[in-house]
Amino acid sequence: MKIINLDHISANPLLPEVQEAMIEAIKKNYGNPSSQHKIGDQAAEVLDKARESVAKLINCAVPNEVVFTSGGTESVNLAIKGVAFGNASKGKHIVTSNIEHNAVLRSLRRLKMMDYHVTSVPVDEYGRVNPDAVAKAIQDDTILVSIMHSNNEIGTIEPIKEIAQITKEKKVIFHTDAVDSVGLVPIDVQDMGIDLLSFASNTFYGPTGVGGLYIRRGTKIWPLLDGGVQENNKRAGAENLIGIIGMGVAADLAQRDMDSRISQVKKLRERLLKELPNYIEEYYINGHPEHSLPNLVSVSIKYIEGESVVLMLDEENIAVSTRSACAAGALQASHVLLSIGRDFADAQGTMVVTFGVDNTEEDVTRFLTVLKDAVKTLRDISPLYKKAAEA
Amino acid sequence: MKIINLDHISANPLLPEVQEAMIEAIKKNYGNPSSQHKIGDQAAEVLDKARESVAKLINCAVPNEVVFTSGGTESVNLAIKGVAFGNASKGKHIVTSNIEHNAVLRSLRRLKMMDYHVTSVPVDEYGRVNPDAVAKAIQDDTILVSIMHSNNEIGTIEPIKEIAQITKEKKVIFHTDAVDSVGLVPIDVQDMGIDLLSFASNTFYGPTGVGGLYIRRGTKIWPLLDGGVQENNKRAGAENLIGIIGMGVAADLAQRDMDSRISQVKKLRERLLKELPNYIEEYYINGHPEHSLPNLVSVSIKYIEGESVVLMLDEENIAVSTRSACAAGALQASHVLLSIGRDFADAQGTMVVTFGVDNTEEDVTRFLTVLKDAVKTLRDISPLYKKAAEA
Repeated sequence: MKIINLDHISANPLLPEVQEAMIEAIKKNYGNPSSQHKIGDQAAEVLDKARESVAKLINCAVPNEVVFTSGGTESVNLAIKGVAFGNASKGKHIVTSNIEHNAVLRSLRRLKMMDYHVTSVPVDEYGRVNPDAVAKAIQDDTILVSIMHSNNEIGTIEPIKEIAQITKEKKVIFHTDAVDSVGLVPIDVQDMGIDLLSFASNTFYGPTGVGGLYIRRGTKIWPLLDGGVQENNKRAGAENLIGIIGMGVAADLAQRDMDSRISQVKKLRERLLKELPNYIEEYYINGHPEHSLPNLVSVSIKYIEGESVVLMLDEENIAVSTRSACAAGALQASHVLLSIGRDFADAQGTMVVTFGVDNTEEDVTRFLTVLKDAVKTLRDISPLYKKAAEA
Repeated sequence: MKIINLDHISANPLLPEVQEAMIEAIKKNYGNPSSQHKIGDQAAEVLDKARESVAKLINCAVPNEVVFTSGGTESVNLAIKGVAFGNASKGKHIVTSNIEHNAVLRSLRRLKMMDYHVTSVPVDEYGRVNPDAVAKAIQDDTILVSIMHSNNEIGTIEPIKEIAQITKEKKVIFHTDAVDSVGLVPIDVQDMGIDLLSFASNTFYGPTGVGGLYIRRGTKIWPLLDGGVQENNKRAGAENLIGIIGMGVAADLAQRDMDSRISQVKKLRERLLKELPNYIEEYYINGHPEHSLPNLVSVSIKYIEGESVVLMLDEENIAVSTRSACAAGALQASHVLLSIGRDFADAQGTMVVTFGVDNTEEDVTRFLTVLKDAVKTLRDISPLYKKAAEA
């Protein structure tokens, strides 16, 4: 039976054109782009081409400002630790938000173990950072502000341009984790005034394990991987050329099809939101009603466990998640949901649906039908629900 | 025209079986191994399978001791910086050799900028490290010894087991950069007593941009990439599953075919060494006559520039290198060749030939014929040669 994938944030399928390009690359058996002979030249050429495609997707004028990495997590680590290590003589203070992805959170936790200090600004009930709070958090020894572009659990899009304006005035480097945004919604590093921007290929239907970091020229940053002179001396190591070629093609397609993809997933999202009250009751929709990823719905369903819903839907061949796959092994309640004011129980009862270009309206209907049964079953055995019903 | 690849150390071609497995993986469109639904389960299963294959190749009994990375460079950086950061409270001294790869050298140079201290032991004229020198270099605050398994420029294999014995006695963590060895020659992490071992998939005809670090259980090391709980909490980030699947198949084949591959490339290497005096004169063979990679020949040809030979051979569709592709952009003389006693001029006149399973005896003959002409042409215009001839 076909599995309905409503967990695109964990893994998007590869588009046919991306598959073709990667298969062709495998068959062509490219060499090492750094080699100084024809085998190397051919590889260097396709590497450049992919870099141009990716640069265009984020409107980066100088392709060399794009550094290929092994994915969003490496990009984030490179941005945060690279700036922290490279600017330690200037200061050891970093500003971030309460709802960042684990790659940011744990990079910062690591830096705290190395005598760095972090100020984390809160978010409002919709998960939005207040740019004024960022401005106030910046100190004389602040070397970096890192605020995500969109949140991976609730979909809220942050006021990045406003924050970048502040960091520019205060001469602090600004990084945004845009791993769940680039390729899905328009990003313009020049217009937004971003210094460092992390992204991942899989967000726009390219392969996993490939990503990039946009590094504005002149940004002081140390490489995280030292060795060869690849990637403009900012990231050593022989390139994952097959993956990068896939990302390049995916970037071209994302740019070409972004508008139509957005309308497609938006329609599914709106349908889900509209129909949901006809299937279940007593739930919250998390995230900002307007500034939000077009494909994500986060629902906190009262009196049940999100994990149980995920498992029951899985039984019926529907894939959803409780939150990012990266955090799936961790058993704490979501820091994001607690930060927007959900209580522990509601946070645990949360489920994230993320649509992709392979989804249809039928998928929404099927999901709602199965969800209704699952919620009923779970509530029937829920002591919390019983208690609430009796009250 | 077909290009004769005699630069396998820069890039090995993918074996047909590896290609097939990767193409199949692309078509199967695996999800995220961390997801808690069927799409994730399927991905987790193939990830486990690849890990078992790779673990077997280095005779690692517990597959979880293998951490997948984005290649040899990341593995080396993780090993060195991970141990350095994770053990800083114990000490900040590291022992290495004079002939390490840039990934090691530059990781250590980076650490020196962070108040770590490095003792670099010399090598003999064949590029061998004396284990006693390592023993003497270890201080009370030594936290790591990092000595490569085989040298990427001259092919010399180091006495790793003896060094590991010393580090074990002195209770210092031992890392070996085995990027140019694993899959090419037998490696047994248990028998050799290694704590950390870096390797790369392309060395054994798997894709570039994929590798691994063996981390013996109980070795204190910090992740370099923080974020999700992937890779036994030692390396965050969504996996490059397609690449890893390719590496797994390549590992199976490397184990199965290692003996026959070694005899094949050894024969070509021996033929080249035997025939060389019939084609050119006044050269040195670098590296150890016995403890050496079976596929590598490093020749210092007097009175000429290695770079020029590479370009002239390239004109004739033969790919060789002056040294590792990672260092190709750097214009200094090789630290390895200077360390074994070559003077600057001879170091600049060096060329590295690395055979692979796709090479034939005809390739050797063709190479020698073209090399002879190239050397003659270059020497005819070489002032050094003229001067020597007149002397």
